[in-house]
Amino acid sequence: MFNQLAYAMGAAPNQIRQIFEYGRQQAKLLGEDKVFDFSLGNPSIPAPASVNQSIHRLLDTESSIRIHGYTSGVGGDPLREAVARNLSERFGVKARMQNVFISCGAAPALEAVLLALRSNEKSEIIAVAPYFMEYKAFTEANGLKFVLVPADLEKFQVNIPALAAAVNENTQAVILNSPNNPSGAVLTRETLLAVAELLTERSARYGHPIYIIADEPYRELVYGDAVVTFIPTLYRDTIVCYSWSKSLSMPGERIGYVYVPEEATDSHDLFLAVAGAARASGHICAPSLIQRAVAENIDCMPDLEAYKVNRKLLYEGLTEIGYECVKPDGAFYLFVKTPGGDNSVFCEKAKAKNLLVVPSEPFGVEGYFRLGYCVSKEMIERALPVFREVFEEI
Amino acid sequence: MFNQLAYAMGAAPNQIRQIFEYGRQQAKLLGEDKVFDFSLGNPSIPAPASVNQSIHRLLDTESSIRIHGYTSGVGGDPLREAVARNLSERFGVKARMQNVFISCGAAPALEAVLLALRSNEKSEIIAVAPYFMEYKAFTEANGLKFVLVPADLEKFQVNIPALAAAVNENTQAVILNSPNNPSGAVLTRETLLAVAELLTERSARYGHPIYIIADEPYRELVYGDAVVTFIPTLYRDTIVCYSWSKSLSMPGERIGYVYVPEEATDSHDLFLAVAGAARASGHICAPSLIQRAVAENIDCMPDLEAYKVNRKLLYEGLTEIGYECVKPDGAFYLFVKTPGGDNSVFCEKAKAKNLLVVPSEPFGVEGYFRLGYCVSKEMIERALPVFREVFEEI
Repeated sequence: MFNQLAYAMGAAPNQIRQIFEYGRQQAKLLGEDKVFDFSLGNPSIPAPASVNQSIHRLLDTESSIRIHGYTSGVGGDPLREAVARNLSERFGVKARMQNVFISCGAAPALEAVLLALRSNEKSEIIAVAPYFMEYKAFTEANGLKFVLVPADLEKFQVNIPALAAAVNENTQAVILNSPNNPSGAVLTRETLLAVAELLTERSARYGHPIYIIADEPYRELVYGDAVVTFIPTLYRDTIVCYSWSKSLSMPGERIGYVYVPEEATDSHDLFLAVAGAARASGHICAPSLIQRAVAENIDCMPDLEAYKVNRKLLYEGLTEIGYECVKPDGAFYLFVKTPGGDNSVFCEKAKAKNLLVVPSEPFGVEGYFRLGYCVSKEMIERALPVFREVFEEI
Repeated sequence: MFNQLAYAMGAAPNQIRQIFEYGRQQAKLLGEDKVFDFSLGNPSIPAPASVNQSIHRLLDTESSIRIHGYTSGVGGDPLREAVARNLSERFGVKARMQNVFISCGAAPALEAVLLALRSNEKSEIIAVAPYFMEYKAFTEANGLKFVLVPADLEKFQVNIPALAAAVNENTQAVILNSPNNPSGAVLTRETLLAVAELLTERSARYGHPIYIIADEPYRELVYGDAVVTFIPTLYRDTIVCYSWSKSLSMPGERIGYVYVPEEATDSHDLFLAVAGAARASGHICAPSLIQRAVAENIDCMPDLEAYKVNRKLLYEGLTEIGYECVKPDGAFYLFVKTPGGDNSVFCEKAKAKNLLVVPSEPFGVEGYFRLGYCVSKEMIERALPVFREVFEEI
């Protein structure tokens, strides 16, 4: 009697959330110190103090109606203007507030973009493994075909010949996610130029643009010398989906945006289609108080010190035990090769010790697991001996 | 190249928002005191002071990670528990937190319920005129057929014979909205019993439940002796969509819920289908800080004094001029018969004087217009002579 697809999506929520819920139940039963939950991408550093200060001040000085009232569906002027200015200054693009749609985070932003791009029942979306599992769910729920390009397991860049084989006349967009969840890899300028060249040629051949959807919630989370290229500077038909969940450590507040560059093909119509798709999904506006607080903190960059410490501790601790993984340049995940190769065996053994990791299969890769190191340093220290136990039991 | 339905929904945003945007532009051009904007349902009374106090306190005393971090997709425990307790105490139902899905307001709640109820391509949803225009948009965007029952223009209750004629074996739900936007009417217990009797008989005849979707954002906004019946107490297959937008004067904050009573047919599966439908639409969780603040203010009732004053002033002022309308029992709208009968003529004349009202056609009724009296008293006082001018010009 119900929508079977919706029922299935509700009955089997994404695996990460399932593991997280399990961890919460175990922590209630056994105590928080007995559970080693590496499942979630929930930032472990606090939101910048200035964000909370903004909220306090806005509540105290502005009228309730301005602060808690509806904004325009596309977002309030202050945040749209702030985003446009910030992007223009940092990346040398000519962004205007008219190109910015404020969303309730990156997930509904992406969902709206995908729905907007379903031009007919043959429309296809390409993602590159490893990929965030909701890409598939959102794509299929919106009636588009999901096409996966296998992972480049060496460097977690893009396998260009495989991408070339996947693109066809029905391809509407390629989703790129850099820094990547789950691998932590940052796509190099070289990689992006190769993707841009391929898509430029194919767009011309098929007579319609093939967009890049740049899903960038981890844009500000990079370490060492890594540089995250702003894709619209290399490829005009790029649609950016952003979220402040990670950069301002406020994933529960649901705030992000879609940026449709003025230079993109049919930019204005595309923007309207995204706004309409959001409306069809129940979007009214993004949370109003948080919109204002983020606008005041638009240039605030995260203090990554805690993640740097965790990354080093976990990477060195695991490789010393014998685990293999590529040192990530960004985000806050380690993507680790499963010892013994069998994920179901490994993850069950780990789960039995309340060591909660996410197997890689839902990310489109076999034989890896993901660790979020956005946790307390102290939990990593307690967890390393447990990682050793599991490693030795395999 | 884009989704034509999404494009159309973006290119022609709902008429209320269009008028509101026009009002904002005019206010910028001419000054706020030259524009009489009755278009929006944006509460004009401030949020209760206790809500802002809760936000201040939560920011100061709780960890950033708890306050700004993800909650479960179905909502955090504190708010789910608070809603279940509040409903149980006020209405004598046996609500548990497992029956409560916290949403980003009533619009995405309704959207998710409609998507969850699309069991096949023949599924139909019935609304009763006058109806909130997004019902049609959400229904059709989710691939269900929208069926409209004509208005009872005498008392703005439900035309039962017309409803009986509209219900068939493909009917999945009937949306009821009491207190009603735009008429302000409250459905009487008598009306609801008649609807329940009809739907009980038809559910048995067709062998599947026909749900009532009770869209209740105005539940707490009633005047005089009017009583809003909580529909699950009369009809078990009721799904409640609620929002705190109006009752706590925070429509920009996007917070509401879906309540699926334990007694509803296939209650648990329906709940999962709603959660899955929300996920398919990009829902991750409702804004986390606001969830906590609302949980602490769950028993807070709005101070309606300002709306009472406005309602009296506007109703008496307009009827004295010669306008005709039924005195509303709830919400914050007057639904006024258009003098001369031709809405397009009237509304254009009014618009030329920056008197912004919403014509009734998008609500499924001809020859009326809607006034939101959730405005300042002072604007009503300034607007009444303009209403007179327009009346005399017709």
